[in-house]
Amino acid sequence: MEFKVNSKELEKVLSKVFPAVPSRTPMPILENFLFDINDGALTVYATDLEISLKSSLNIVSDENAKVLLPAKLLYDIIKSLRDTSINFEILQNGKVNLTTDHGKYSISYLDSDDFPDIPSFPNESLENEDINEFSINGNDLRFALEKSAFALSKEEMRPAMMGALFEFSDDGFRIVTTDGHRLVNLLRKDIKLNFQQQYIVPERAISVLLKLLDERDVKIYLSKSHISFGMNDIELISRLIKHKYPDYRSVIPLENEFQLKVKTKELHDVIKRMMLFSSTNTRRVKFSIKDNNLQISAEDIDLGASGTENILCEYDGEPLDIGFNSSYVNDILSHLNTEEEILIKLHSPTKAVIIFPTKEKENLDLMMLLMPVRLNN
Amino acid sequence: MEFKVNSKELEKVLSKVFPAVPSRTPMPILENFLFDINDGALTVYATDLEISLKSSLNIVSDENAKVLLPAKLLYDIIKSLRDTSINFEILQNGKVNLTTDHGKYSISYLDSDDFPDIPSFPNESLENEDINEFSINGNDLRFALEKSAFALSKEEMRPAMMGALFEFSDDGFRIVTTDGHRLVNLLRKDIKLNFQQQYIVPERAISVLLKLLDERDVKIYLSKSHISFGMNDIELISRLIKHKYPDYRSVIPLENEFQLKVKTKELHDVIKRMMLFSSTNTRRVKFSIKDNNLQISAEDIDLGASGTENILCEYDGEPLDIGFNSSYVNDILSHLNTEEEILIKLHSPTKAVIIFPTKEKENLDLMMLLMPVRLNN
Repeated sequence: MEFKVNSKELEKVLSKVFPAVPSRTPMPILENFLFDINDGALTVYATDLEISLKSSLNIVSDENAKVLLPAKLLYDIIKSLRDTSINFEILQNGKVNLTTDHGKYSISYLDSDDFPDIPSFPNESLENEDINEFSINGNDLRFALEKSAFALSKEEMRPAMMGALFEFSDDGFRIVTTDGHRLVNLLRKDIKLNFQQQYIVPERAISVLLKLLDERDVKIYLSKSHISFGMNDIELISRLIKHKYPDYRSVIPLENEFQLKVKTKELHDVIKRMMLFSSTNTRRVKFSIKDNNLQISAEDIDLGASGTENILCEYDGEPLDIGFNSSYVNDILSHLNTEEEILIKLHSPTKAVIIFPTKEKENLDLMMLLMPVRLNN
Repeated sequence: MEFKVNSKELEKVLSKVFPAVPSRTPMPILENFLFDINDGALTVYATDLEISLKSSLNIVSDENAKVLLPAKLLYDIIKSLRDTSINFEILQNGKVNLTTDHGKYSISYLDSDDFPDIPSFPNESLENEDINEFSINGNDLRFALEKSAFALSKEEMRPAMMGALFEFSDDGFRIVTTDGHRLVNLLRKDIKLNFQQQYIVPERAISVLLKLLDERDVKIYLSKSHISFGMNDIELISRLIKHKYPDYRSVIPLENEFQLKVKTKELHDVIKRMMLFSSTNTRRVKFSIKDNNLQISAEDIDLGASGTENILCEYDGEPLDIGFNSSYVNDILSHLNTEEEILIKLHSPTKAVIIFPTKEKENLDLMMLLMPVRLNN
């Protein structure tokens, strides 16, 4: 059978689906695109078993067919072609011939039977009550995930924390991420739905999603085992992590009574310099807060280097010395860099601090938590 | 002793000298900058024993001093500072204190005695007859090195070919590079000097030099062992490679009588696609030339993929099939991409081909040579 497609239109579809192709895998079949030609539409699928991507375009074709094509090779070939019509001819001998005005190329295909099944949403085989759905603006979802994804755990020992918690409750739609050292808690108060549920979305789904989101709305379906993000021309389907998320509420301190206000950029610039002096083992940086002065210092004994800087702040608490991992402080400040000023609530050198933007946003609560590290002296 | 310097001015000097600091070295002393404060000037040196860089700026200082400062740490600190005055205080206890309006930093220094000597040019200790010198426009030198450096050999077994030949003769100033598979021969006919000599400049000197060259003239000194490139605010000194360069003239075929003219970009686009099909072992691509048609084809048997394209050409020879390494063809075409059309002179499937731009440039001859690879059929 044969079908025709424009090179640039196909390139666009392949570029969207390609991120789901695993770069190294013990299952070579996953290194293929599934081409499903059905009633004048070509749908391209790729999956690494955790996430799947699919996207479609209209083509000229009389027959239906399903084949597996080597993803990287095909994508590289299509990218290398100028704007041209390509004739795909699927032969019985296991070859696909691609013909353009200038050249003729031949690649091998595989049978599609062994390709893993990819769930589709909405799914008529499931009862309606098993599927929850809602829509959110793409930029709003991007904002929420960009602010939170950095705090995801990379430790395979705690699989639940390797994903982001999506929690739907009377409060609204909440996203929580944590690796045990820091935690991000972001709440969209205006997204209140008719179900109460927790889901854990894996890191890989989030990082691929962040490349696909734009200003358009995203239609989200949630089953017990999968989440689907439907954008205009591409759908991302991901497994959910089937573990119980830790009780994040129990680690957020409620009685941190000392308030410290600082300019975000000023503090961030100091932290970036102090990272140069903080020891490569501990990465420790010391905050000494007294009246309206925040002194930040770090020392690398092995290197024989040290640094101290002072910045102005507003502080209403008792004099306090507290240590942090400078990389974690840097991460948090990098993700609050849109805020002119932040509020840090503290209690003692051994208790978690919580950090807020000072300017409230409509319908949005954002809180970050950071554990201190012990000071030796 | 103390001296003062502006952070941004110092950053500019350090950024120029830093490329000579080796990133991994069995001699940790080379991971330092040499700061030489002498009569109100600070000269910063770095060396990896093969190349050295030096650059100066004026400072406010009463005393002279020489210290070694950890290059990466100091450069990172200076880069991280905003535009500010820095007071350097060199203490007897092995520490240097840096003080700005906002902060105080301390780093360790080392004694400068163990730092390698760096030759200086013009050198009064050498007889005049031992030193050759000339000037060349920075952009002209950049052009010549950019066109030729890609063909340098990376094989340590043939040390002479790991550098570029700088040959001064009655023809002019010639640069030759080769790795045995391809060769670049570039002649500046207008640079005729009063000495006849061959020098071999190592790859590292060329790659660092390419980052420093601009439109200003470069003053070049050549001793028996070193070459110095003096630019306005920075000097690069490099060892020369003390081996005999192979006789490049003997490999350049003179009787290649078949002439093939093609559009550079058109051929290059085809080669980039054929690289996808050429087998990863041989990288072989086949040129089949007949009348005014150039057919280019490649096949990867392991992958079960193949491609064929045809482009128009002007050809006056007998029908010819000849194979090349597609990566080498790609390299050559990448470095002739400023040329609309190229001329390829051929003789037979086993003999080197030579490649020229069709448009002659004033005072400049440029030739590239490529060895064919055997075709199996």
